[in-house]
Amino acid sequence: MAYELYYWPGIQGRGEFVRLALEDAGADYKDVARTQAGMAAMMTMLADKSASRPPFAPPFLRHGRQVIGQVANILLYLGPRLGLSPRGQADRLFAHQLQLTVTDLVAEVHDTHHPVGNGLNYEDQKPEARRRAQEFRGSRIGKYLGYFERVLAANRKGGAWAVGSDATYVDLSLFQVVEGLRYAFPRAMAKQERHWPRLVAVHDRVSTRPRIAAYLASPRRIPFNEDGIFRRYEELDG
Amino acid sequence: MAYELYYWPGIQGRGEFVRLALEDAGADYKDVARTQAGMAAMMTMLADKSASRPPFAPPFLRHGRQVIGQVANILLYLGPRLGLSPRGQADRLFAHQLQLTVTDLVAEVHDTHHPVGNGLNYEDQKPEARRRAQEFRGSRIGKYLGYFERVLAANRKGGAWAVGSDATYVDLSLFQVVEGLRYAFPRAMAKQERHWPRLVAVHDRVSTRPRIAAYLASPRRIPFNEDGIFRRYEELDG
Repeated sequence: MAYELYYWPGIQGRGEFVRLALEDAGADYKDVARTQAGMAAMMTMLADKSASRPPFAPPFLRHGRQVIGQVANILLYLGPRLGLSPRGQADRLFAHQLQLTVTDLVAEVHDTHHPVGNGLNYEDQKPEARRRAQEFRGSRIGKYLGYFERVLAANRKGGAWAVGSDATYVDLSLFQVVEGLRYAFPRAMAKQERHWPRLVAVHDRVSTRPRIAAYLASPRRIPFNEDGIFRRYEELDG
Repeated sequence: MAYELYYWPGIQGRGEFVRLALEDAGADYKDVARTQAGMAAMMTMLADKSASRPPFAPPFLRHGRQVIGQVANILLYLGPRLGLSPRGQADRLFAHQLQLTVTDLVAEVHDTHHPVGNGLNYEDQKPEARRRAQEFRGSRIGKYLGYFERVLAANRKGGAWAVGSDATYVDLSLFQVVEGLRYAFPRAMAKQERHWPRLVAVHDRVSTRPRIAAYLASPRRIPFNEDGIFRRYEELDG
């Protein structure tokens, strides 16, 4: 049974963390809203007052009759099905914990360009964005990336991946975090990366996985742009 | 085996969502950092570079040898053990999805008083806070509470609780959301509550559960204050 991913069609955004897992596993899936009819279907599902388990916002996944929202929750569901979860229960819970920390980081990245609110354009909150981005570059990026580096260093099962001895959806998400931060904050990231060699190594290993490499080279991978989560605004990179 | 909760001792904050679940279940637990020695133990655990599954930040839970971080993840673990999760797998995943949406709301509440960054005091980001709070009151509170109301209306198993036919940790969290928003934004909430009767009813039902009522009347319930997530600043309530 094919997976149906519902997400905004013009951006990587939060949906990309799910796309990477589906692509790495070679799963049979449809990125529904990338056709006009699919986009209409997504909006209908979001507005459906009779849905018994409605999602709050995209992305959401439909698998058979089940509809699942929230990126980390989708990956919690998909992980074991795609062979991208660690084996033991304690490791599974820890992988999910790491994914929730990625979620927190992604929300903070979003707020560097939208510190006042989503209802306003970036242009209407530029002074606030400049201050928030300065704080983010100065004290948040390092805190998050240093944490992931520490997790990699403390993994007793090899250390090549975040949890256990094999790649999981967490590693795919860490790849995306590094890619996104490089795009949005190239100067700040150049300085950061020297400190986190294990994290950069995970990024590199993920990028050479055959299905990921094929995906990144395909038109299915939407380029970063200034409608997504990771945006390049010169003035926010210090 | 007793549960050990590690969280900042002076605030309800994010730890309160875990406290409410432990209290409602009458669980054997220790709120570790509420003694000086416990606080020192928490800081030691946070700094322990050899920990194989380190938490990013408080709150975290220790149960036997397992250490679990991220509020929603802790509740995912505790729910079935405390009898506060729904029964089926689809409902469990949906309960977790709702908890992650509560997490998002809580982060937005935090950012109404800290829109620039955690490293600065509220006093150093008051103009930004005023703008963000205005956006939050105007377009975010209603979006979140309206979503939870819709979930309650669409629950086909009775409608008294968020998921399934019995109370879960999600309902306890919705209680805390209503309490917190009433404290932080009394004027805005007075207007909001008229629109979301089912949500207010869940709040009221939770508050009269015997163990919750006893907890709220006890010194274990830390009063809301201006170091926590939900803060009352007159100027942010419009």
